[in-house]
Amino acid sequence: MRVDGTWFRTIWLKDESTVQIIDQRHLPHDFVVEDIRSVEEMCMAIKDMHLRGAGLIGCAAAYGMYLACLRSLPCTKAEAKEHLAICAQRLLATRPTAVNLRVGVERVQAVLDKLLGGSEVDREALQLAAREEAKKVTDEDASFCERIGEAGAKILEEIHRKKAKLAEPVNVLTHCNAGWLAFADWGSALSPVYVAHNRGLPIHVWVDETRPRNQGASLTAWELAKHGVPHTVIADNAGGHLMRRGLVDVVITGADRVTRQGDACNKIGTYLKALAAKDNEIPFYVALPSSTIDWQMKDGAEIPIEQRGDEEVKYAEGLGEDGKRRKVLLTPAASPAGNWAFDVTPARLLTGLITERGLADSSEEGLRKLFPEVKLA
Amino acid sequence: MRVDGTWFRTIWLKDESTVQIIDQRHLPHDFVVEDIRSVEEMCMAIKDMHLRGAGLIGCAAAYGMYLACLRSLPCTKAEAKEHLAICAQRLLATRPTAVNLRVGVERVQAVLDKLLGGSEVDREALQLAAREEAKKVTDEDASFCERIGEAGAKILEEIHRKKAKLAEPVNVLTHCNAGWLAFADWGSALSPVYVAHNRGLPIHVWVDETRPRNQGASLTAWELAKHGVPHTVIADNAGGHLMRRGLVDVVITGADRVTRQGDACNKIGTYLKALAAKDNEIPFYVALPSSTIDWQMKDGAEIPIEQRGDEEVKYAEGLGEDGKRRKVLLTPAASPAGNWAFDVTPARLLTGLITERGLADSSEEGLRKLFPEVKLA
Repeated sequence: MRVDGTWFRTIWLKDESTVQIIDQRHLPHDFVVEDIRSVEEMCMAIKDMHLRGAGLIGCAAAYGMYLACLRSLPCTKAEAKEHLAICAQRLLATRPTAVNLRVGVERVQAVLDKLLGGSEVDREALQLAAREEAKKVTDEDASFCERIGEAGAKILEEIHRKKAKLAEPVNVLTHCNAGWLAFADWGSALSPVYVAHNRGLPIHVWVDETRPRNQGASLTAWELAKHGVPHTVIADNAGGHLMRRGLVDVVITGADRVTRQGDACNKIGTYLKALAAKDNEIPFYVALPSSTIDWQMKDGAEIPIEQRGDEEVKYAEGLGEDGKRRKVLLTPAASPAGNWAFDVTPARLLTGLITERGLADSSEEGLRKLFPEVKLA
Repeated sequence: MRVDGTWFRTIWLKDESTVQIIDQRHLPHDFVVEDIRSVEEMCMAIKDMHLRGAGLIGCAAAYGMYLACLRSLPCTKAEAKEHLAICAQRLLATRPTAVNLRVGVERVQAVLDKLLGGSEVDREALQLAAREEAKKVTDEDASFCERIGEAGAKILEEIHRKKAKLAEPVNVLTHCNAGWLAFADWGSALSPVYVAHNRGLPIHVWVDETRPRNQGASLTAWELAKHGVPHTVIADNAGGHLMRRGLVDVVITGADRVTRQGDACNKIGTYLKALAAKDNEIPFYVALPSSTIDWQMKDGAEIPIEQRGDEEVKYAEGLGEDGKRRKVLLTPAASPAGNWAFDVTPARLLTGLITERGLADSSEEGLRKLFPEVKLA
């Protein structure tokens, strides 16, 4: 997507020895591009959340395996294998729960394993293969997201057609950040917005600030601003009122995991917006690449919900009036706080799931129809 | 309620010429008592929100009229009447939409008008009468709130009786601040909590932080901590998840206005919690003194919703790591924000209304049964 008129992805190769990423810790106040030159640096970037988001973490892991094939790669086959296994382990340990991380590492490793079948280590061949596979992982992520955008844009265009006035924008409400910053490009929930906006459809996005980490206020608002999409940041409390007043046409969120019956685990607070959408007969979609579907799990109640440190609730972080990044304490110092990172929205509250293959009913039947090749263990 | 072991109200007479209030702008980080010695100082305290909350504003207005009877009161009857009328107008202009403000002013003015019927100005008699009426307004506010607490405590005791283990606390979720800081004492939503806690019932309160002004994180958490009530601050996004996991037994909120059919206007986000309570079959009560009922209005959709400045959403305010109060910018500087202060929860989502006369059905019939003397124009 565009940043001040220039097209960016969230991760790319600067030259043969340097991966570049947008260091998201500085957003929305500063746009910082970081050079990553070793697997150690990539591990730190993932662990310390210079980058985050399901799709993007997978791409970063793949590029991490590429970096493992550069200067530090030993010359003997046994040593090279050991080195790559250690690098893979380090990458996997950065954020152990993210599915895409594992996929990114394993895809590059599989390619390398084939090349390491011979007797000699052809360093150049390994580097080339790893680089190509990492690029493929990243291109596929962007391409899946773009297809999600095309499927979702049809929904937005349909809503627009029913509007009384053509100049009236389609009002989309979203929660958290499921935009291009969370993937290689395009995003999941925001991809339909970008595709429709690029086609000239008038769009306006209500951006839930998404406490406690404020990914909406800091990342989603920044993305939309930089790409030129009209938007308004609101407190997480406001969405229900906006829906009752007819100011929301459709809700689209991303997901961290979707079970095979269509229950959607996403950022804490998503469930409340889904209830309000249902109460006001407003369509509510979850957008996701199929890699987010957990075919082994049926009921969303089984999904373990991460509890994070209470300092995220007790403090807010932002830009101080002195231009420095600052944390401020919001609560009495001694009051405890609870911090659940996700909630589960039951399939019954969803209008549908927007995937790279199009729209699915939020049901086991709906998902199986779209992905008939999936065989359950 | 107690602050570090000492009982406080939110407003009281220090001596015959000084009203004292808790300056709520400094909470939760500092406990500051402010002297108010003139009607001008009281106007500033209300306008700049040194104090806030429907009930408390009424008490402050009544004491403001008392202060108007002190040194500055002219000696001739005509001049005294003019002076009091001007003071009343000044007080009314501080927060023009608050119903209780008008009631507080008018009650003291009515008492003074009677005494000004004679030919001479008996300054001492006027001062005594105004002081007594202001004290009466304040005592009534506290007494109504205490009765709300007794009615509500019965509900909490009943919930506790059904618990498997007696030591298990009753988990109450509340939104915003409808505690003693919003009234002369006790509060509305929190009064049942205090009454039950004082009787030894195990209680735990989930405190919604209540963005954008964070009255939950700053005021409710402080109140509960100071009175020794176990509590946990949570992001406004978390309540739905807690309800799905069985961690909430009952929701109690206050209200800014309740229509005669029982629609409740309260802090933005209340509606979302009511939807989640309904979806999880958890009782949801609104606690209010009868002065909050707008008998003239039937449908909550008619209630005008205040829109406030966007800086409340764009910034968060708290205690910096350097011990200074600081504001931090959360969003891109140029992104617009929307800030609706209230929403309306339809009567169908409420389990009941807790008033000083006990529990009412959230319906016109239910309210009329409890207040049969009310005649509609």
